Amino acid sequence: MANKYVTVTAPVNIATLKYWGKRDRFLNLPTNSSISVTLSQDDLKTTTSVCYSKNFESDALYLNGNEESLSSPRQQSCLKLLRKCRIEKEEQDPSLDKIASLPLHIVSVNNFPTAAGLASSAAGYAAMVYSIAKLYQLDLDRSELSKIARQGSGSACRSLYGGFVAWEMGSLDNGSDSKAVQIAPRAHWPGIRAAILVVSAAKKEVPSTGGMQLTVKTSDLFDYRVKQVVPARYEEMKKAILAKDFGVFAELTMKDSNSFHAVCLDSYPPIFYMNDTSKRIVKVITTINEAYGRNVAAYTFDAGPNAVIYYEEKDEDIVLGTLHEFFGSVPGWAKKSGKSFSVPRKFPIEKFDHDVFSKGVSRVILTSVGEGPTLVPESILNPDTGLPKL
Amino acid sequence: MANKYVTVTAPVNIATLKYWGKRDRFLNLPTNSSISVTLSQDDLKTTTSVCYSKNFESDALYLNGNEESLSSPRQQSCLKLLRKCRIEKEEQDPSLDKIASLPLHIVSVNNFPTAAGLASSAAGYAAMVYSIAKLYQLDLDRSELSKIARQGSGSACRSLYGGFVAWEMGSLDNGSDSKAVQIAPRAHWPGIRAAILVVSAAKKEVPSTGGMQLTVKTSDLFDYRVKQVVPARYEEMKKAILAKDFGVFAELTMKDSNSFHAVCLDSYPPIFYMNDTSKRIVKVITTINEAYGRNVAAYTFDAGPNAVIYYEEKDEDIVLGTLHEFFGSVPGWAKKSGKSFSVPRKFPIEKFDHDVFSKGVSRVILTSVGEGPTLVPESILNPDTGLPKL
Repeated sequence: MANKYVTVTAPVNIATLKYWGKRDRFLNLPTNSSISVTLSQDDLKTTTSVCYSKNFESDALYLNGNEESLSSPRQQSCLKLLRKCRIEKEEQDPSLDKIASLPLHIVSVNNFPTAAGLASSAAGYAAMVYSIAKLYQLDLDRSELSKIARQGSGSACRSLYGGFVAWEMGSLDNGSDSKAVQIAPRAHWPGIRAAILVVSAAKKEVPSTGGMQLTVKTSDLFDYRVKQVVPARYEEMKKAILAKDFGVFAELTMKDSNSFHAVCLDSYPPIFYMNDTSKRIVKVITTINEAYGRNVAAYTFDAGPNAVIYYEEKDEDIVLGTLHEFFGSVPGWAKKSGKSFSVPRKFPIEKFDHDVFSKGVSRVILTSVGEGPTLVPESILNPDTGLPKL
Repeated sequence: MANKYVTVTAPVNIATLKYWGKRDRFLNLPTNSSISVTLSQDDLKTTTSVCYSKNFESDALYLNGNEESLSSPRQQSCLKLLRKCRIEKEEQDPSLDKIASLPLHIVSVNNFPTAAGLASSAAGYAAMVYSIAKLYQLDLDRSELSKIARQGSGSACRSLYGGFVAWEMGSLDNGSDSKAVQIAPRAHWPGIRAAILVVSAAKKEVPSTGGMQLTVKTSDLFDYRVKQVVPARYEEMKKAILAKDFGVFAELTMKDSNSFHAVCLDSYPPIFYMNDTSKRIVKVITTINEAYGRNVAAYTFDAGPNAVIYYEEKDEDIVLGTLHEFFGSVPGWAKKSGKSFSVPRKFPIEKFDHDVFSKGVSRVILTSVGEGPTLVPESILNPDTGLPKL
């Protein structure tokens, strides 16, 4: 029996309606539904090759070239669920190779810094689940796979789809209705762009699972957010995406980022993910929108200080012209090397202290809405040894 | 008829249950009741002398040596209400001098920076209202005077009393039941200390009236805060003060500061008053409390980045020992010049990057719970000229 392997790439997603709070922390069941935009794999992706072999001693994971533990309960949940599906398949069709119990080697690389608040765990779990599902030739659609990825990392479930994705919270205790669905594919609204302003590449101070638990337990405002504020916003945001109404989409995105960070601050002790640089970015975006009398851009912040700025392609000159004025000296502009940027006419640049406002950002990543996990031919794993290719 | 004059001093108060949101912005009627501690006038006070004279051309205000306008609707409301009370008094007792319509000169000085987020308007309006009431010999108690001061600046009403003060929001449209009452005098719990860490003496970015209006209008969480969260906390905090239960008082104080800044952040566009220095101070206080397994200190932040740290006298060595370690080089420690500070044994100082955590604070003010407005003999106004004494 030859070693079999597959390679997939999977995307990062950045929520526009935030997931914050678990109603079941073992199954990663959320306290509210959420919405995200899947970002282009041209700029941010995890590539994962997997193979099985009876010659391997045990399951193994190599992340960015280093062997890492596969023993966490979250990783084990995903592996167990995928093997269970393969076992059922083998039982139904005795002609299939018996591979479910063979050791797996997983080799994974990110083309961006791990754990810098760039949702690397989402892309990582999506890639792992999707690749093993392909290796095992499972007949599960992306929503079904999203339930498995969810148990690895909640927000990973949304990385199973491209375009605009909802994570329906579900209501069942066993989590079988808590899954990702596609609101619209990339092609529905391909003009959506994202500029990521990397504020700090340091590890997070408060990991998100612990932060969520603290908020659920201690914030007096949290319950109202998840029961009253988010459900209405969820429906409005889906509508805005379907209608390609950027003004409304942007407003809801910014409001939900604010609301999420508000309940973090309302935790006891309070959790702060945004820093002074983040706040200056909010001021810049707010000023662009005021200057143009419409929402040209929307900021959103996850569990860290990095900003993600969504905008439409048609407004690129306004948005990137402004951001380049402040952050033009940091890496990340190479893909626009033919372009000359200038501060948009209406932006009141004279009101900003350039030295102060250009501080704190270390890198920009210019990207756009993208596709979901994809099979690719090039393996990053040597199928004979099960080790990463050099 | 001789010129008559009186001089009073009035204190600053710092809310432990925050006032944020007006239900009537002309009458300064709040959306929730609030609680504050009045701070000692030894450290922070406004001194105001007032006199009337038929020789003066018109009403005039001299603030910190400079003539300032008295034409704002808020100033005019206070003057009008006080004159109305005097007129009624003169009508009831024809033997009284007819002074209600004579021009007033008001000379006022603060012993601390104006508009640095140190509640200078509260002390200022309390001093103005109390001094004119004394000049006019009005038979109004402090609660009645607090309703007049409230129309100048909402939180000023709480500066009419010493000790621990509640501002009862009231329910009437004309505001006649929205007034300050004393929960307990200074002597009830004289061991309460406050360390103010002045983070920035710059003028506020978002003035509080505008900030409140924005929060009321746009925050989705605000309504829940004022209707559900604050009313319960108000009762608990009054109980904690009466029971001198510092642990509970501290927890409620910190939670309400968090909650207030959370609804600011939930505004659209968001309002940020705390900065990175403020957050580091939160971390230091939280760490002290964790190290001792009880609430040794409580932070609270108003509409600006300055921190006010409440603690009990018995814990001074712990609290000031820690704060001195980080901020010992800034002005404000002179009153403790005989004392040698050291980091308290249980504080994990090794976990803090001293260079980072000692940044951003420009001054400390060490103070304590204090008394309300007081008549003093020394005038700061020359009664012959109506001008400030040099």
